[in-house]
Order: sequence, then C-alpha cells, then structure tokens
Amino acid sequence: MNTGRDRTIAQPGDPVDAIDTPALVVDLDAMDRNLAAMAAFSLERGVRLRPHAKTHKSAWIARRQIEGGAVGVCVQKTSEAEALAALGVADLYISNEVVDAAKLARVAALAARVRLAIAVDSVEGVDRLAAAMRASRAPIDVFVEIDVGHGRCGAAPRDAAALARRIRDAGLRFAGLQAYQGRAQHLRGVQERRAAIEVAAEAVRAARAALDAVRIDCALVTGAGSGSFVLEAASGLWGELQCGSYVFMDRDYADNEAMPDAPRFEHALFVKSQVMSRHADRAVIDAGHKSHAIDSGLPRIWRRDDLVFANGGDEHGIVRAQEGQARLPTLGEALWLVPGHCDPTVNLHDTMVGVRGGLDRGVVERLIAVDARGALG
Amino acid sequence: MNTGRDRTIAQPGDPVDAIDTPALVVDLDAMDRNLAAMAAFSLERGVRLRPHAKTHKSAWIARRQIEGGAVGVCVQKTSEAEALAALGVADLYISNEVVDAAKLARVAALAARVRLAIAVDSVEGVDRLAAAMRASRAPIDVFVEIDVGHGRCGAAPRDAAALARRIRDAGLRFAGLQAYQGRAQHLRGVQERRAAIEVAAEAVRAARAALDAVRIDCALVTGAGSGSFVLEAASGLWGELQCGSYVFMDRDYADNEAMPDAPRFEHALFVKSQVMSRHADRAVIDAGHKSHAIDSGLPRIWRRDDLVFANGGDEHGIVRAQEGQARLPTLGEALWLVPGHCDPTVNLHDTMVGVRGGLDRGVVERLIAVDARGALG
Repeated sequence: MNTGRDRTIAQPGDPVDAIDTPALVVDLDAMDRNLAAMAAFSLERGVRLRPHAKTHKSAWIARRQIEGGAVGVCVQKTSEAEALAALGVADLYISNEVVDAAKLARVAALAARVRLAIAVDSVEGVDRLAAAMRASRAPIDVFVEIDVGHGRCGAAPRDAAALARRIRDAGLRFAGLQAYQGRAQHLRGVQERRAAIEVAAEAVRAARAALDAVRIDCALVTGAGSGSFVLEAASGLWGELQCGSYVFMDRDYADNEAMPDAPRFEHALFVKSQVMSRHADRAVIDAGHKSHAIDSGLPRIWRRDDLVFANGGDEHGIVRAQEGQARLPTLGEALWLVPGHCDPTVNLHDTMVGVRGGLDRGVVERLIAVDARGALG
Repeated sequence: MNTGRDRTIAQPGDPVDAIDTPALVVDLDAMDRNLAAMAAFSLERGVRLRPHAKTHKSAWIARRQIEGGAVGVCVQKTSEAEALAALGVADLYISNEVVDAAKLARVAALAARVRLAIAVDSVEGVDRLAAAMRASRAPIDVFVEIDVGHGRCGAAPRDAAALARRIRDAGLRFAGLQAYQGRAQHLRGVQERRAAIEVAAEAVRAARAALDAVRIDCALVTGAGSGSFVLEAASGLWGELQCGSYVFMDRDYADNEAMPDAPRFEHALFVKSQVMSRHADRAVIDAGHKSHAIDSGLPRIWRRDDLVFANGGDEHGIVRAQEGQARLPTLGEALWLVPGHCDPTVNLHDTMVGVRGGLDRGVVERLIAVDARGALG
C-alpha cells in the first residue's frame, strides 16, 4: 500500500535540516570510505570479497560493492535474492539452508537467471535441493555449511565429506565450505575473538581433512564478518569474506575492541529524530524501537555523550542528561541516533536518505530504497 | 519495491499447510471473539471504545472494529493516520504529540478530510498546532495529555487548565484529557496494576480539579490499555478506552495475572515457521527477530510447552527440548510462535494471512495488508 509517505521524508537537494523524522539516514561520504577500505583490504590480502547484503538490503549498494571489486553478494533468504536479482544484482549466494519444496522451486527458477549459490547442512537438504534443481537444470554452486562453534546451523566438520559426495552424486557442483562464526563478531575483546576464530579454523581444517581423505577438492572456504575478518583473512584457510556491517557500522560493533590490523570503519547509518515532548528532567524524541532495532542494545546519541538514551517503547525515546550539567535539547530539536544493530534497523525502513557533506550541513543526494525490506522467506 | 513476494505467502483458499514461512498468521475466529468480547464489555460498562490501531495497522481491521461499535480508532503517528484515512477510516485520533511544522501541515490537511483529534502536552505544542490549523480552518479535537505516572510524554496534571485555556484562546476545541498509563499494562500482578491505575486516577482527578477551578468543562477522559482497562472503566473517570492488543494478544500480555472482571482474550496472532536445520540437541527454524519483535521477550512455541525457543539472531530461531524427553520437530516441520509483543511484530510484515478453522486444519480466508506498516513519522 503506497500512501505516498516515502515522498514526505526528503527529496534530493534538500538540506539535512529538512529531512522528516524519524528517518534512516546514510552518510554517503562515510559509507564510501568504508566501501573503499574493505575493498582495499581484500585486494591487499588476496581474498575475495562477497559482502553480506542482509545489512543494507539495497540493490544500489550491492551494485556499488560489486563495481568496487566484490565478486557478488550474500543474502540469507530466497526472497532477498529475488528482490536483488530483479534489480540487476547478478551474482548471489544464499548463505543459508533452504529446505521447503516451494521455496526450492523459486531457488531453481532464480538459478536460471543469475549466478547463484546456496548452502546445505544435511543429507535431506541436499536431496531436496537436488530434486528442485533437476526440474530446472540450471547450474548452482553448493556450499556445505559446517558448524564452526556458533551452535546454530551447520553440519559437524567430519560430515563434510559425506555431504560433498552426496552433492556430487546428485549432479550438483560442490563449491566448498560455508564457515561463519556469527557469535565471534560481537565478542568484545580481541583475544576472545582470536580464540573463537582459532576454534573455527580448527573446524575448517577438520572438514578439509575429511574432504582430502575422500579426494574431494575444496575450492573455497567462505565466511567471516565485520568483527573478525582480519583473523579469517590471515588464517590462510578462508578465501572469501562475507562482511556486511562494515558498510554502516553500528553501536554494537563500535563497542568492540578494535582489531590491530583492521581498517577503521566509520558510523555511516543514523536515525534522525526530533524532540516531541520536553520536561525538566527529560526530552522525549519521536524515535522508538519501531525506528531502530534493539536486539543488540539501545542506540547511542551521536556526538552528544552528555546525553543518554532510554527505551520509551515502540514510538518514543527518552533522553536524559548523562549526569549533572548537560543541556537537554529543546522542543523540535534534532538528535541523531547510532543504532545498536544495523541489519534489523534497516529492515524497519522502506527508504534510506543518502546525504553528502555530513550530518550538520549536508545535502540529500538520493533516496535509497530498501529493496529487500521485509523479505523474510 | 514490489517484487511480488506477497503473492508467494498464501492465497485465499489455501490450506494452512501451504502457507509459506515465516508468515504472520491471524486466527480470524479467535480475533472475532476478541473483537466481540471487547465491544460487549464497553457497551455493558457504558464507556466508548476507540481501539488503538497501532496494534494491527490495518484499515480492514479498523473498519471491523468501527462496525462493531467502536467510535473510531487511535493511531500514534501522522503517517499512520494518513494510511488509514486513505482506506476509508474516517474517525482518527493521533494520541500523541506532533510538533514539527511540516508534519502539522499534514495534520491540518487530514483534518479537512476526516474527523481528527490530536494530543498536546505543552504551550509551544498548542501554539504550533494552532498555527498549522489556522492555515487550513479545518476542525480538530485537541486533548491535553497528562503524565499519569508513566514518565514519558504528558504535562503535569495542574498544568491542564492553562493548556486547555491556551487551546481555547487559539480557537481550537478542547476535547478533554489523554490519560494513558503505558507501563501499567505489563505489571504482572493485578494488585500492582490496580495501584498504578489508582495513581493515574489521582492525576486525572487533579487535572479535572484544575479545569473545574477555571470553569473549563472536561468532556472526556480517554486512555487505558489491554492490561488495565477494567480498572479505568470502573473508575468513573475514563469515558473512552484505547485498548489495542486485545485484538491479537501476545505472549507478554498472556503472562499477566488475569484481571478478575476482564473478558478472556485469546491468542490470535502467530508466526508460522519451519525447521530448516536439525541437530541432535536442537532444531533451527527460519524465524528470527526479523519475523517477531523481541523488545518484550522471546516468543512462546504454541501448544508445544515441551519446547523452548532461544534467540538465533535476525533470521533463525533455536528450539530445544524443555527438558528430557521432548520430541524435537523434524526438518521441514512447522512450528507456530506466539510473539512476545504484537504491535512491533505486525510492523515487520507487509501482510497478515487470515485463517478460518484453526491452525491445524484451517483455510486461508484472506490476506490482510498491514497498511500502516513502517509509518514512522
């Protein structure tokens, strides 16, 4: 139902002050520096970059990543792949399991239109995928996901050989290993992350040994995220990085201890809000958790370390002085939030407002559609 | 960007088994019983019912509430009002403050098309609203919001008189008091809720006394939510109930100790999911917090008290045996989640799938558009 509300957020050429609130705003200058830094890193380390589009859900940003050297992008869901493919993203990897027959028929149809890869972690999963692909005869790359310590999806490393053989026997292409340690991304200390990725590396070595034992070549190990990718790149095991959040960064990633060799990524994603109710002890802003995801904690107020954000529910945020003498913002005043977690925050918005020239005096360059917003299945 | 994915979720006439996952499913029989129970309650108690549409964000459900006796609906945001007005909902109350000039111009334009009301909590807010309304000359009802103990928006009760006078002096219509205690809704014990609403009632009495002292009539006190409305209705102070969640109920409301005199509302909102990865100790389902809001805690697995849900991130849920002997679901098996909090869960979906005949053997009757999804501003 298009009620025209996208048009009310902002228009290209508007000054930042004119952006309606709450709005999701991208600092395009900061984003460009993040894109360039990651592209340079992967080039320098000789690893492929396949950024995760679940962060931005935008065909425009995916195409810019590919133009900057990425081999393609990852997605988590069939419908995300469909949304981006429809807008010209031609190399997609569904880095997740799909087992439903109706959805696998869509996967097969998509494989006939774009270069497509997918993950599996069970014999039954291979068989279901193979049945769908037989009907379409389109090519697809199949990665075996192994559990590298996350405890979510993924086969045991020793089972990689049997799965790879099953893939080959079914007439599909075994493309390598999916090895992503999601939990490691947000371990605060560098030493903890190092330890977690060392465990993940051991799992990869075990899976490769199992494949070697049956003489099945593992062409590629793909994985890594924005909190740990320096470690995977240095391991000599991973050949492809799937980092997503580096594009925008969020409060939760910024709270990590920085990895010594990592590029410095900047916050590029903000929720612009404004004060809608003012009291002696608090200002209430028009952005609650319908505007920013709070699964990884509350947002930080950008460049106002004297203020602290408290959860005010779906539609409100409550802003108080950190302690003592802070100047509380006045009615109508804008505040900018750095979301706790970028991926699900983006999923709450139809549109991102792309700004050049900074958040103080910048100008709206473009509206960026969140093409795969709500692509759940 | 319509990529056609709504059409892949389900079609009217489909059996429940054919609904794609993850999908937001409404048990229409249960919802109808909830609607009827609340309509009967408000009729019996002689209070007006103006349900909060922030729960369902659907013009179809809003119209059904009005057909069932509600005087209109509440919304929280200008853009929600616009979305519902565009689809035939003709009596709307923005139960929240709006202070931005551009947004107030939209409020004024809307007031020319539907019966509209709005809340204010400051002199500056009244003046900004009055400036916008002078330009349009449309009528609008203005409620003074008082803080009844929530500590978010709302003026001090004693300031209600000055605000009401300011509203009248500006040529606007003072319609009464907005008195909603959001925090009281989720206090678990009946006694705690009773105490919180008694404090709120004291605030209402204080505001009414201040209005009486300056001989300004308070035509209506509006407020209450699905956790406390029996108390507001019994107080003799509130004349209008704004309950929203009773339509669907959620896990968080169900965890409340039931109010003795309250109608029994049923769960009517579910996320259908399926197992996408199966392990000896866990099943991983395809619904994470991109499918259900977790601000009020994790979902419950419907009619599987032997299973427990753990957060698996944006796209996954991890399901384990409660203890001991539970049968873990198999690959592809459907599980139904009762979301922790209905309002922001609905906001994650473009479409709700309305089912008749129950979740086991029912049939899809209709797709219900979430018309005001993402209406943030």
